[in-house]
Amino acid sequence: MRANRSIVAAALSTAALSTAALLAFACAGASRGPAPLSPADPAPPAEWAIAVHGGAGTIDRGIDPQRKAAYVGALRAALELGSRSLAAGEPALDVVEKVVRVLEDDPLFNAGRGAVYTHEGTHELDAAIMDGRGLATGAVAAVKTVRNPISLARLVMERSPHVLLVGDGAEAFGDEMKVERVAQDYFHTETRYEAWQRALDSERRQEDRDTVGVVARDVFGNLAAATSTGGLTDKRFGRVGDVPIVGAGTYADNRTCAVSATGKGEEFIRHNVAHTISARMDFLGEGVETAAEAVIRRTLRPGDGGVIAVDARGNLALAFNTQGMYRGAADANGRFEVGIWEKWER
Amino acid sequence: MRANRSIVAAALSTAALSTAALLAFACAGASRGPAPLSPADPAPPAEWAIAVHGGAGTIDRGIDPQRKAAYVGALRAALELGSRSLAAGEPALDVVEKVVRVLEDDPLFNAGRGAVYTHEGTHELDAAIMDGRGLATGAVAAVKTVRNPISLARLVMERSPHVLLVGDGAEAFGDEMKVERVAQDYFHTETRYEAWQRALDSERRQEDRDTVGVVARDVFGNLAAATSTGGLTDKRFGRVGDVPIVGAGTYADNRTCAVSATGKGEEFIRHNVAHTISARMDFLGEGVETAAEAVIRRTLRPGDGGVIAVDARGNLALAFNTQGMYRGAADANGRFEVGIWEKWER
Repeated sequence: MRANRSIVAAALSTAALSTAALLAFACAGASRGPAPLSPADPAPPAEWAIAVHGGAGTIDRGIDPQRKAAYVGALRAALELGSRSLAAGEPALDVVEKVVRVLEDDPLFNAGRGAVYTHEGTHELDAAIMDGRGLATGAVAAVKTVRNPISLARLVMERSPHVLLVGDGAEAFGDEMKVERVAQDYFHTETRYEAWQRALDSERRQEDRDTVGVVARDVFGNLAAATSTGGLTDKRFGRVGDVPIVGAGTYADNRTCAVSATGKGEEFIRHNVAHTISARMDFLGEGVETAAEAVIRRTLRPGDGGVIAVDARGNLALAFNTQGMYRGAADANGRFEVGIWEKWER
Repeated sequence: MRANRSIVAAALSTAALSTAALLAFACAGASRGPAPLSPADPAPPAEWAIAVHGGAGTIDRGIDPQRKAAYVGALRAALELGSRSLAAGEPALDVVEKVVRVLEDDPLFNAGRGAVYTHEGTHELDAAIMDGRGLATGAVAAVKTVRNPISLARLVMERSPHVLLVGDGAEAFGDEMKVERVAQDYFHTETRYEAWQRALDSERRQEDRDTVGVVARDVFGNLAAATSTGGLTDKRFGRVGDVPIVGAGTYADNRTCAVSATGKGEEFIRHNVAHTISARMDFLGEGVETAAEAVIRRTLRPGDGGVIAVDARGNLALAFNTQGMYRGAADANGRFEVGIWEKWER
């Protein structure tokens, strides 16, 4: 595998894309292999592809230009890191974890560092990761002192027999795994604190429910998905949303697609959004864009949220039924764009 | 609705089944309505149907006859309660909760009273309930002092905006809802204590992972599912299995079916077992038995577990790939049987 990877990296670095594509398919065959070419899909396969999101919802078009530039810059940087890593032949699973870590460390996003406040003024974080090769998956919910929940989720997947660990138990597992711990005030940001104060003062349900997520298809044809969040501002009672619920906010299966969702978690759980996209591809033979659009436009209701997805050929889908979704998409065919509202930014 | 219900009950009590069936369909029309009659399904629709399970796994055929009689008696009693309630026109949602409560209160089953021991010698319980009418659902995970977790899950569904509450937060919500609390020693049973002691003494992973579950179709054509468990003997780190994961261990949609699963939770999560059965019916047009068998025989591996399911016409499926599954099935056409191994008990 290591040898193949460096060959692919070398091929890519000399821009010998067709050779790389051949090698990629040869490697993919060794695991589960990409889906067959569908007639509706005449574009050449992208030997790697990645999409990122930073949450979907009502995003003010009159947003402060500096703040907008910060989001665009952060999405671009995440996408660049992911693209560079995939082009160098890194496995999708490593790339989705790595890019989510960067988004978790960025105070702009409601995940890791920038996590929202709970009703009690604490922070409780959820994350999930899934490997499309054999459906291995790991998730954590309601963790309080773990700097990068996505990496703890990966350890649950690889170093425990379980899929989902919650609360103090997940923290204790983190101790054994020696993950990096932080004090709760690490998660303090002025923006989230003010949002919490406004929520405490108001009777209105909070709509501050962003998430970060990454899906990738690597040069070996493998898919992976990772999602991380601080949840809902002012949430109470150990509320857990869709992010750590495999099949709701996160899913990956080499035979179909990798999906990461963001939005009203409860709706994404009851409709099993991520798994439904995979099931539509599997049982109805739909392409990834058709399946993602069907779920976003027909299964869900306007304002519920959005998804990013990638299939085994590197086709990307970014669909949302909210005013906006912080997002980015890139692939080996030269696509590289980020967006907030309908139109992509130039 | 109340008026309709008593009419249906009266009709049933005078055995005017065809009138009752007509009324049932009229009522069902007011919500979402049953699935259309499929040509593969010539049996007259059962205007109510119910299935229960008490866990799947390796069940010793040389089981002590008294213990076997206790299980058969408990399953029969649960089935009788459910049948009587459905025949009297009670809604599926009420019936699945009521019957799961009885199974939770029975020390024989690993749910509620008979919950297994965690590695730390405590008890942590999970439960989920789902209403097929509008996909309303509620779940709790890792609760420690709630006598009937299934009723707390129903309160999450009906009295909170959320779907899943975990740990101390779920307990605090239980306080507000004034659910019945018990001390941890309420959950002590000699059998589970000994199983825990054996687990502590051995390096071997525990296989003691039973669950209880009920699915029902009421005379109004509505479906509901409920599942409850104490989880895995000797579990650590706040491990949560498939039971409270909507789409994995529990799912209900009037358009397709209601499902409750039992077995190796991690496998049921990664394959989204309950939702996959629903998706096969929805997207492939399979009947409930075909869909359940496909998932149990082909998606899962021998030894993983089992499911019970009911469709909108009252067809029941009880499928497992383990040596046995404690189970029962009854409907308005006179079916009433319980079983442990392949053959139904007489």
